[in-house]
Amino acid sequence: MDSLGPTSDETKIRIACVQMQPVIGKVEANVAHSVTLIDRAAELGAKLVVLPELCNSGYVFKSREEAFAVAEPIPSGRTVKAWGEIAAKHKLHLVSGICERDGDKLFNSAVLIGPGGYIGTFRKVHLWNEENLYFEPGDLGFPVWRTMGGILGMCICNDRRWPETYRVMGLQGVELIVLGYNTPSVNSQKAEEGPEKRLFHHRLMVQAGAYQNSTWVVAVAKGGAEDGFPMIAGSIIVNPDGEIVAEASTEGDELLVHACDLDDTVFAKKTIFDFARHRRIEHYGLITSRTGAIPPP
Amino acid sequence: MDSLGPTSDETKIRIACVQMQPVIGKVEANVAHSVTLIDRAAELGAKLVVLPELCNSGYVFKSREEAFAVAEPIPSGRTVKAWGEIAAKHKLHLVSGICERDGDKLFNSAVLIGPGGYIGTFRKVHLWNEENLYFEPGDLGFPVWRTMGGILGMCICNDRRWPETYRVMGLQGVELIVLGYNTPSVNSQKAEEGPEKRLFHHRLMVQAGAYQNSTWVVAVAKGGAEDGFPMIAGSIIVNPDGEIVAEASTEGDELLVHACDLDDTVFAKKTIFDFARHRRIEHYGLITSRTGAIPPP
Repeated sequence: MDSLGPTSDETKIRIACVQMQPVIGKVEANVAHSVTLIDRAAELGAKLVVLPELCNSGYVFKSREEAFAVAEPIPSGRTVKAWGEIAAKHKLHLVSGICERDGDKLFNSAVLIGPGGYIGTFRKVHLWNEENLYFEPGDLGFPVWRTMGGILGMCICNDRRWPETYRVMGLQGVELIVLGYNTPSVNSQKAEEGPEKRLFHHRLMVQAGAYQNSTWVVAVAKGGAEDGFPMIAGSIIVNPDGEIVAEASTEGDELLVHACDLDDTVFAKKTIFDFARHRRIEHYGLITSRTGAIPPP
Repeated sequence: MDSLGPTSDETKIRIACVQMQPVIGKVEANVAHSVTLIDRAAELGAKLVVLPELCNSGYVFKSREEAFAVAEPIPSGRTVKAWGEIAAKHKLHLVSGICERDGDKLFNSAVLIGPGGYIGTFRKVHLWNEENLYFEPGDLGFPVWRTMGGILGMCICNDRRWPETYRVMGLQGVELIVLGYNTPSVNSQKAEEGPEKRLFHHRLMVQAGAYQNSTWVVAVAKGGAEDGFPMIAGSIIVNPDGEIVAEASTEGDELLVHACDLDDTVFAKKTIFDFARHRRIEHYGLITSRTGAIPPP
């Protein structure tokens, strides 16, 4: 079940993708399951552990009430507390999807937690269809954090299909983007689009985002199935050249470990993707002035 | 030398990529060479013929004076006249790279010409290193044209590495992006990066741009070598799902023909890439407000 990357190296961050299958609504069991896998990742020397979207709650809610009942405030909720304890125990960082409640609002969020406790939150910006019934769109943008000697950003699932996601973080010098996702094997809007095509699009987006911003991207899947929907799985670690350096080989629980050298982001940031030298923002205006497409008359 | 696509179909545009090798400075010979290949494309039923970057002039200039001497005004110059005649003769459209002079300024441009004559110009926005010594950055943005029953946009070479290029056209409903390029087999800034990696990046950018904007993208290479620099070639036609449907198999003169159905762009524009529904421009501000990357303190 484990795919080991290069051996530990002081100049690199050893990252573990924890592909796993949370069960809808079973927060206590899901967190316990995640802790078991984090323990295993720590044994493999991981210094950053990445877990999937809505890892503590599951994804396929039947109603907003069901989501609300399992959501929790950040950082005072029970899940962040449990993850904070395991991060402290193993002296590692982790990023994981979490169902967040902030007053009356729900967010599909991710938390960054270090050995010293809670660090920061990302709230999913590009919600996917039915999610709009339960969650608010993220209102925090795409911040980055200085941590583990580098610059880290987060996004979630559908965010990874949008080049704007990577670029906004790229413009903040991001060196490592981590994300969880929950992608069913069949496109609910196009039945003939099966897992091969879905995995192709998944890889294409993550690889392009990595290359075009010269950043590592670590994408971690929910495995298994939920409510009759099998998942594509396919967790990947992509280097700043856009190459896949590690990929899950199963659709179930799986740990992928790779030592990611943040120095690998430097070359392209100074050459082909030196934004200061090459970008021409005077011609990009529509990207922020226009939401939908408007064909010419 | 020819790779035939599906047979002709009234609802599709039959497109020919003309991969060819212009010779530096030899405008008359290059245009004659292009006309021979356009004749051949017309025999194969092409209704749109796409030629490479700086097709009439070659690319590797030794000085600005050398480029200036072969540049010409658009549409009054000799090259546009010759291409206008061949487009009228075969009742087809063509897009080709051209070395443009506008007063004292030089641009690395592409022209769109139809059976009725000149239609429009694109000027390369993202110049590549030494090009800045000869050419001005494009000052026309990324316009699109209604033509051949669809919406067409253009870009050139390094423009294809920037997601902003595709997105600005996507926000104008583009259905077909055509581009020429001139990409040497070895990265001049990284000798160990050879043709396989260069082709990988080329495909990745074009495929991602097509998928993320649900548009056809037709990318046409200069083949052969120039001034000791062998080219990657690798002309491709990519569908709106991001899949390569035709790809050059040689590094020399080659015609790729494929019938592209613009209706294939509709599905994703109405679902996963329905920009009006999904884009969150309130979080994209840095893309147009900041040129270079600024890491956090």
